Amino acid sequence: MHRTKVRIVEDALDANNTIARANRDDFDRAGVAVVNLMSAPGAGKTSLLERVIAGLRAGVLEGDVQGSADADRIAALHVPVTQINTDPGFGGECHLDANMVRSAIPDLPLDDIDLLVIENVGNLVCPAEFRVGEDVRVMVSSIAEGEDKPLKYPLMFRTCDLVLVNKVDLLAHVDFDLDKYLYNLEAVHPGVERLLVSARTGEGVDEWREWLARVPERRRAVA
Amino acid sequence: MHRTKVRIVEDALDANNTIARANRDDFDRAGVAVVNLMSAPGAGKTSLLERVIAGLRAGVLEGDVQGSADADRIAALHVPVTQINTDPGFGGECHLDANMVRSAIPDLPLDDIDLLVIENVGNLVCPAEFRVGEDVRVMVSSIAEGEDKPLKYPLMFRTCDLVLVNKVDLLAHVDFDLDKYLYNLEAVHPGVERLLVSARTGEGVDEWREWLARVPERRRAVA
Repeated sequence: MHRTKVRIVEDALDANNTIARANRDDFDRAGVAVVNLMSAPGAGKTSLLERVIAGLRAGVLEGDVQGSADADRIAALHVPVTQINTDPGFGGECHLDANMVRSAIPDLPLDDIDLLVIENVGNLVCPAEFRVGEDVRVMVSSIAEGEDKPLKYPLMFRTCDLVLVNKVDLLAHVDFDLDKYLYNLEAVHPGVERLLVSARTGEGVDEWREWLARVPERRRAVA
Repeated sequence: MHRTKVRIVEDALDANNTIARANRDDFDRAGVAVVNLMSAPGAGKTSLLERVIAGLRAGVLEGDVQGSADADRIAALHVPVTQINTDPGFGGECHLDANMVRSAIPDLPLDDIDLLVIENVGNLVCPAEFRVGEDVRVMVSSIAEGEDKPLKYPLMFRTCDLVLVNKVDLLAHVDFDLDKYLYNLEAVHPGVERLLVSARTGEGVDEWREWLARVPERRRAVA
């Protein structure tokens, strides 16, 4: 029985990967680099995007179970934004998959942007399972969540290219051992790039903007 | 196509509900009240349990993708604890379902406890979809996650019996409008019980312990 279950799941992921590759081909043809931005709920994905996105030739694809609050925040910055709501799935899908992103491609202004940031649903488990056609993966990890998170959600931390360690302005006010966190992160994903940032105070935001601005250059270098 | 997909999911939830009822029957026969404890990653489920669980005739069932760090913390308090890891599923299931809990029942010391707390996987989406045989649902909502969370994850907030608004010791240090949060909560789940708590300072912990201690009494009153 167990063997059968695993097989079904592998097929589903295989189909997802096929569609993700098709998305990637479309993005490559348009010359658009794509970031899959992930985190737990409330870790600060949108706030960190608000800090940097207006300075880039970029668009945003917002994934949420319900509502368009984050898309409204990005649109207020005159950045092109497209919303996907996952709630037509059973009470709300907990992640974006390649097919959801594919359905949004006709609405994306690919000719007008160099960079597309896909803001995933807030969740540290399933979003890491589903490639959507991205070049790189960035995760936001809030220090308010505790230093054990890399050990508890290893796939997410292991498959990302950059960890934004956010809310460092709270370091003095929470029981969070930064050295222990970085040790745990290193254990799960040795050598992964990381930036200490605060969307609230602006700490590390310039470095984050520079990192993001280099994503299209990197893509061109590979292409 | 879409219609077919929804139908499959409804069947899966229907099977889950059947097993959840079987779990509930077993718990009822043993006279054990069951709490399904849910939250986003790092909101403070384990810390709030540590504060109150030793004073009750209770056991804990820990659900995690990987590892047993939380179970170790509970076991250190000499409270009986059983661990479920969901990572044999595809890279880690993002929630507990009724069948996972069912597989753990033979390992639970049901004769020695009045209360079982099931600590779910950290996630604000799918855990709300899956009944596991609980009497009541408690969610922990950290103020560090922002005041918009009830609007973004409405099913979770709508289906719980108590909201523990945690980390209120950080109110002075984050941009969090408590009135706006409570307004959003009321919009999604009018009249739901809520307690302002801090696992760090102990604020509200006595009220949380009393609430939890009343769960077995409530169950007996209904039975």
